[in-house]
Amino acid sequence: MTTIESRTIDLAELAQQLRADAVRCSARAGSGHPTSSMSAADLMAVLLAKHYKYDFEEPDLPGNDRLILSKGHASPLLYAMYRAAGAIDEEELMTYRRLGSTLEGHPTPRLPWVDVATGSLGQGLPFGVGMALAGRRLADVSYRVWVLCGDSEMAEGSMWEAVAAASFEGLSNLTAIVDVNRLGQAGPTRYGADTGTYAAQLRAFGWNTVEIDGHDPTQIDRAYTEAEETPDRPTAILARTKKGKGVAAVEDLEGKHGKPLASPDEALAELGGPRNIQVRVATPENRSPRPERAGRSVRLPEFDVGSEVATRDAFGKALTAVGEASPDVVVLDGEVKDSVRTQEFAEAHPDRFFECYIAEQQMVANAVGMQALGWVPYTATFAAFLTRAHDFLRMAAISHADMRVVGSHAGVSIGRDGPSQMALEDLAMMRPLWRSVVLYPCDANQCAHLTSTMADLPGISYLRTTRAETPVIYRPGELFPVGGSRTLVSSKHDRVTIVAAGITVSESLAAAERLAEAGIPARVIDAYSIKPIDTSTLRQAAAETGRILTVEDHWPVGGLGDAVLDVLAGQMPSTRFAKLGVRGMPASASPAEQLAAAGIDTEAIVHAAQQLVA
Amino acid sequence: MTTIESRTIDLAELAQQLRADAVRCSARAGSGHPTSSMSAADLMAVLLAKHYKYDFEEPDLPGNDRLILSKGHASPLLYAMYRAAGAIDEEELMTYRRLGSTLEGHPTPRLPWVDVATGSLGQGLPFGVGMALAGRRLADVSYRVWVLCGDSEMAEGSMWEAVAAASFEGLSNLTAIVDVNRLGQAGPTRYGADTGTYAAQLRAFGWNTVEIDGHDPTQIDRAYTEAEETPDRPTAILARTKKGKGVAAVEDLEGKHGKPLASPDEALAELGGPRNIQVRVATPENRSPRPERAGRSVRLPEFDVGSEVATRDAFGKALTAVGEASPDVVVLDGEVKDSVRTQEFAEAHPDRFFECYIAEQQMVANAVGMQALGWVPYTATFAAFLTRAHDFLRMAAISHADMRVVGSHAGVSIGRDGPSQMALEDLAMMRPLWRSVVLYPCDANQCAHLTSTMADLPGISYLRTTRAETPVIYRPGELFPVGGSRTLVSSKHDRVTIVAAGITVSESLAAAERLAEAGIPARVIDAYSIKPIDTSTLRQAAAETGRILTVEDHWPVGGLGDAVLDVLAGQMPSTRFAKLGVRGMPASASPAEQLAAAGIDTEAIVHAAQQLVA
Repeated sequence: MTTIESRTIDLAELAQQLRADAVRCSARAGSGHPTSSMSAADLMAVLLAKHYKYDFEEPDLPGNDRLILSKGHASPLLYAMYRAAGAIDEEELMTYRRLGSTLEGHPTPRLPWVDVATGSLGQGLPFGVGMALAGRRLADVSYRVWVLCGDSEMAEGSMWEAVAAASFEGLSNLTAIVDVNRLGQAGPTRYGADTGTYAAQLRAFGWNTVEIDGHDPTQIDRAYTEAEETPDRPTAILARTKKGKGVAAVEDLEGKHGKPLASPDEALAELGGPRNIQVRVATPENRSPRPERAGRSVRLPEFDVGSEVATRDAFGKALTAVGEASPDVVVLDGEVKDSVRTQEFAEAHPDRFFECYIAEQQMVANAVGMQALGWVPYTATFAAFLTRAHDFLRMAAISHADMRVVGSHAGVSIGRDGPSQMALEDLAMMRPLWRSVVLYPCDANQCAHLTSTMADLPGISYLRTTRAETPVIYRPGELFPVGGSRTLVSSKHDRVTIVAAGITVSESLAAAERLAEAGIPARVIDAYSIKPIDTSTLRQAAAETGRILTVEDHWPVGGLGDAVLDVLAGQMPSTRFAKLGVRGMPASASPAEQLAAAGIDTEAIVHAAQQLVA
Repeated sequence: MTTIESRTIDLAELAQQLRADAVRCSARAGSGHPTSSMSAADLMAVLLAKHYKYDFEEPDLPGNDRLILSKGHASPLLYAMYRAAGAIDEEELMTYRRLGSTLEGHPTPRLPWVDVATGSLGQGLPFGVGMALAGRRLADVSYRVWVLCGDSEMAEGSMWEAVAAASFEGLSNLTAIVDVNRLGQAGPTRYGADTGTYAAQLRAFGWNTVEIDGHDPTQIDRAYTEAEETPDRPTAILARTKKGKGVAAVEDLEGKHGKPLASPDEALAELGGPRNIQVRVATPENRSPRPERAGRSVRLPEFDVGSEVATRDAFGKALTAVGEASPDVVVLDGEVKDSVRTQEFAEAHPDRFFECYIAEQQMVANAVGMQALGWVPYTATFAAFLTRAHDFLRMAAISHADMRVVGSHAGVSIGRDGPSQMALEDLAMMRPLWRSVVLYPCDANQCAHLTSTMADLPGISYLRTTRAETPVIYRPGELFPVGGSRTLVSSKHDRVTIVAAGITVSESLAAAERLAEAGIPARVIDAYSIKPIDTSTLRQAAAETGRILTVEDHWPVGGLGDAVLDVLAGQMPSTRFAKLGVRGMPASASPAEQLAAAGIDTEAIVHAAQQLVA
């Protein structure tokens, strides 16, 4: 394979090689998206040969440009680029979609050159905005973020959250390359080949736009140069292309999406056969490595035992302290910084605080993009509104993202605002996430400790905070390891164990007092670590007390109760079990009225415990 | 209270009454959003007195206009309008946010005049698009849909999904009234008072736009008239307003969001005190009631026992049959009709098929809006991408919506496309939804029956379908009641019960054969109804076999296994329990390789069952 200097490369030939490789690996796999790759082959050939600056030997180099395949199904094109760049060889290319191969149907960071997983459309551009934002506001090196978008995915609202954020932040280091091939998977897209409409929409949102023939290397090259030279704003290149370009049997035809070509050999012949052009991809001038994470010694806020403090307040103060100790900690807000208490961090560290406005998908996408570049993001909004970003959280797990998500205003205890503002399914959403950690503190010192602990956790960690003030029961400086719990009331005579977390801990302690007076000694466990949960302590409590009662400010499905049950089920001893959770659709009421109506207050706990021991 | 003819009403006076009422009821409640109500008071006064056509005595009248408070936190304004219209009295207004009151912090359909719950920003306009779309394409009566939007929520991508859909569908019956009061809850919005930017963006998306002073009744009246007279396209009115308008202590000031006024008496004095203007709201000319649901006799497709058919195919054919029998059934697609098999319905009933393109939030919002007007929507996309619309599904439950959601390509069994396309958390997402039903058929005849059953179910019902072909094991015409199950293998000697659903049923049947050969008689239960689940059958199986093994193509958290465990836990007999679910992050592989790697294939089931009985 002969390496050719970029400037001497025949770009049309390189594009044909990319097409041929996409056709070949899809044919070998028996599945895949060759036609979606063929439409963008010229766009990627010109990028790779003349504009992209990337060291495939050192993918973590901060100076590297970034390429995101927002249309992730065009992965054969990406893998063909890797072969052209010498990053993978022919043999590896042919493992596409095979068991054990890192060349998956849609790109994931199992490949060292992929920062974020794509495949759920409408997410690549939002991730790219996060990366470009980091380059603009956080990093001391300049790099460009190139995002290959599909035209179908422009219908996703998340794309427009990204579009609005990118221009507002003046991300001239971001280029969106929209492959307007006119055809979605099921038929023509909403706007077909009308690049003018896309361009007008993007311009109205403050973008620079260029409309080109996406199969003309000269026009593509000029457009990329314009993007590189345009100050103050991102550039979108609206490229008119043909899906399946280069093979008459599929070119610009419906019904050819997501399947290998019927006659790959004929197609290859039509494309001029396989080629072995290798591109010497330019590398960034700036070779300075990413700085090591600073050694951290956090001076956490301290709260007096017996005082009443909302965990959201403790989180806010602890977050500021964590930010003080760790210059790589960044915070993202969904225009609720006053409610979720990230405002203090915003004032203390304005350079590392990002107002995402009411766009939860972009807020989470920013975090995913920034963590891919080594930053330590905390995102925070009302826990109920995190459901807005569920698909982004799902993809973040596939991206192996290390990020922290904080949801406030959990449960009915928020009071009078009503169900639209209450998170009653957030635990059920966060627990299934691959490698996730789920934490739910009941007091301020515990919340402060967990907020700090999260900074060093891998994967997606979730902290659930409470709007209402709760009594401080732990001393400052106490430790709360992930996977642990606290047994708050215990005796060898205990006849029932109450497992609580967050707002229900104080209700449970009051219930235990009432039960003791009634001659029913009850154990109380604070299960602040809902995932992983303290298996040994819970099993021991089950064995010793024979009865387990869980109580949570959440629907009875998918939360603390099910997490406890899962632990007991492993061996399923003859334990009597009962679960208290929100039992009906709440409305407006005071916090105390809400807890009573939901059946999770002291009264309800006492009653349920009495029934268990009866 | 004296009724005043609309034409003689002093609109400024009426607006002051609405402001005064918002201040009064928030003061009484001790919480609420008076300032967000005051900015839009003139906009709503003019609408109520001069343009809105609604019969408060007959809210279900198809001819009624619809009003949606997309900025749901401005509920005091809505309730003040109800008082002005004579729908509620002074006493009821003062129950705002109280326990038991239907005047909640954010509007819900517990009020007869509210069609959809709002309060999660960015959803009201999408719901309105669904209603306007029904009026344009389904209903034989004309009505207008008026949506009061906040400026902050224009940052939500879902708003732009709605904006794009509305113009593409030519919804001239839809008017968005954007209350540009410049201030969000935590500070200034992204564009502040710049109505020109919003207008340019909306025009680029094909909307007619009008920029006005939102406190000038004449300009407002003229703008509404222009909206009513503009053909072919929706109109957006960008109204410059002042948050807290009318009270100097809060007007146009930051930090005044979401709290009652500090000095309500002074504020009321400044507003000129309470008023008792009553508006005789115009009623629609068209009084024809909504037609009764047609008597249905569905001729379902039939599949031969022993053949192999994908449940997604059975769903598609059954859906067409249901549509044949029921003229009120409508189908919404996220540009995957070929994959999820709604294409056949689209061809058979194009008038009731809605292509929503790749915009899952709008797809679900259309369903919510249409069901509010009496239609019977089925929405279908890849189950994985339903996570995109999680917040809309959450709000749909609060809206008491009756709608059907179908998710295809469930689990690892889809094969080589990889994890981004696999639904592994959809059961965990759908089970907690209030009043939801969750169905997961394993064969074509069962799927066809359940598809038909869903048409008459209240609440949100979810059907999970499979991409791969599965053996047909049930005869055509067999019944599968919601809450039921099928015991496929059983004897009085059974030593273990395998509980499966969907793709894992055939694996379990194969495992049972292998176990029988090994001298371990195993019971096999098809738990096609995951919520509600067949409690009695499962408890009986636990009692009779002493061991329960669940197996599902889903993360081990939140799905079938946890649903079964929940049932056993109620009494927690000495049952040994084990749960098989997808045990690691999948990659690309064949369906069979995926099931094996996930630990949910025949081999894994046999192994787990042997361990349980050991």
